Amino acid sequence: MTDGAAPEYAVLGIGNAIVDILSHAGDDLLTDLGLVKGAMTLVDSAMSDRLYDRMGPGIEISGGSAANTIAGLASLGAATAFVGKVRDDELGKVFGHDIRSLGVRFDTRPAVDGAPTARCLIFVTPDAQRTMQTFLGACVDLAPDDIDPDLVGAAAVTYLEGYLWDPPKAKEAFVKAALSAHRAGRQVALSLSDPFCVDRHRESFMDLVRHHVDILLANEKEIMSLFRVDTFDAAMHLLSEHVSVAALTRGAKGSVVLSGNEIHILDAEPVDRVIDSTGAGDAYAAGFLHGLVRGDDLVTCARLGGICAAEVISHFGARPEVPLDGLAAAKLGNPA
Amino acid sequence: MTDGAAPEYAVLGIGNAIVDILSHAGDDLLTDLGLVKGAMTLVDSAMSDRLYDRMGPGIEISGGSAANTIAGLASLGAATAFVGKVRDDELGKVFGHDIRSLGVRFDTRPAVDGAPTARCLIFVTPDAQRTMQTFLGACVDLAPDDIDPDLVGAAAVTYLEGYLWDPPKAKEAFVKAALSAHRAGRQVALSLSDPFCVDRHRESFMDLVRHHVDILLANEKEIMSLFRVDTFDAAMHLLSEHVSVAALTRGAKGSVVLSGNEIHILDAEPVDRVIDSTGAGDAYAAGFLHGLVRGDDLVTCARLGGICAAEVISHFGARPEVPLDGLAAAKLGNPA
Repeated sequence: MTDGAAPEYAVLGIGNAIVDILSHAGDDLLTDLGLVKGAMTLVDSAMSDRLYDRMGPGIEISGGSAANTIAGLASLGAATAFVGKVRDDELGKVFGHDIRSLGVRFDTRPAVDGAPTARCLIFVTPDAQRTMQTFLGACVDLAPDDIDPDLVGAAAVTYLEGYLWDPPKAKEAFVKAALSAHRAGRQVALSLSDPFCVDRHRESFMDLVRHHVDILLANEKEIMSLFRVDTFDAAMHLLSEHVSVAALTRGAKGSVVLSGNEIHILDAEPVDRVIDSTGAGDAYAAGFLHGLVRGDDLVTCARLGGICAAEVISHFGARPEVPLDGLAAAKLGNPA
Repeated sequence: MTDGAAPEYAVLGIGNAIVDILSHAGDDLLTDLGLVKGAMTLVDSAMSDRLYDRMGPGIEISGGSAANTIAGLASLGAATAFVGKVRDDELGKVFGHDIRSLGVRFDTRPAVDGAPTARCLIFVTPDAQRTMQTFLGACVDLAPDDIDPDLVGAAAVTYLEGYLWDPPKAKEAFVKAALSAHRAGRQVALSLSDPFCVDRHRESFMDLVRHHVDILLANEKEIMSLFRVDTFDAAMHLLSEHVSVAALTRGAKGSVVLSGNEIHILDAEPVDRVIDSTGAGDAYAAGFLHGLVRGDDLVTCARLGGICAAEVISHFGARPEVPLDGLAAAKLGNPA
């Protein structure tokens, strides 16, 4: 999709390396703990421990927004790499194992001291909504030194999660990666991650969207928060002035994809029963980027996104349970 | 069900404290790795690491046979306690959190040095069969000192898993617990755990069944291995001479329960789709013991066992995903 040598990787993801701890919870528990339903809230180590004490039995699954997207891309058959910081502890080993076992290149050096591997406590309510409390742990140690410009140059798209704006050094790493990508003639994609994350970093994100981002992925709340407007339509039109390509998800209402003057409005992929919405946006990004890099038309890219999201929300946990390549081929009615 | 003061706990479980790492796997991977399908095999730390390197992405869920049974009993509303050894590491914290958050009393001191918390690599094949590779880790440090005779005396039934025969000091702890239980006028239940485990410890198990066990839980392969006979019927009749109560599971064929001259043969509870058979026997034991301790008739005990097993095999992982008390009440057509 760009000039120069053919890229070795379809997508390089850079993000927080997190292990999710998921548990079913009633709405009363969320109220009792004072949690903001549906959001991702940052907590410190002590608060994370306190919340964990109140959480029911959990299951641990590797997570992290960009890492989930990369896992989805690997499952779709794309060549991928990931950069993110774990500690050299048990959960760090779990995270590394899970992503490498999908065939993803992951060789960021683990931190040998400091905070433990990041964890995200996810309370899944009966309405399948997820409420996340993240302790960033070792993620705060991700730094510009962890970004290898050659690796960035070897990927058609460098994909960055907005959550990276929370750990301060990671933000510098992010900017280094974006500059390296463009220097190599590659593209930069950004996910806005979360409306509260957009609130925390609005000016910074606006600057990015104006100057550094080619492909934007966001949901309707995030994009409305970014431009401080009250309607999805207004936000969409403001956005289209700044980025080449955008994929905007709207939950059960489907998604809208833009490129230049082209706009397509797609329905959501049908799902028998939504079990857990954790990772829906991450999975959508995987399908969309997969299509984009391999040169699919915009409608097919959006459909691929919807197919991947539908798989992930039909079970507990943010990563696909079945190989997405076969699923996508079956749904699209052509070979992957 | 016994003389003396009313027991504070319905069941005290003593077992290996293990975190399961579950992953989907093809039969070809099992062949390639030389694994014995359907069995639990003990591996050392180095082999566990080697197998983990070859395993696909996993999810971590607290496990351990007796611990799963205690989790099931807690979900049924029973007052329970558990004794088992973890290390003071991240997976140890996960194990402790998961069992305590169900309301189970668990205050075995974690090991502060030595091997890490035990892990069991579980390869789940498309036929829903599970193949387990266990690194016992800190479990080998469970010792007689970890058994508090007062706690044993406070439980109507002390439930022991056959797998405890593998770590040598745990076996001594087991015998101490069995003697303490009988001294307090309580009952001792044993699960044979695995046909290969029975092979490893046949003489020891025979002695136990003859002299220490009141309630035996086993599947047909285990019981046939114990008595070295070729038919389930022969094994069942040999067993009935030695224990007061037995619950024998036969997979899709259902279960057979015995008490004195009473024999009942029950069909398996219907399941829409079997996803993962991990923990089926553990869940059956939970339902059966729950009924037994609260004084249900033998047929109801067996039905409760079947209902719990059906829930657990209908999803990934060995512990119940929905509260079993409500499920059991709905299926049995009366309040739990």
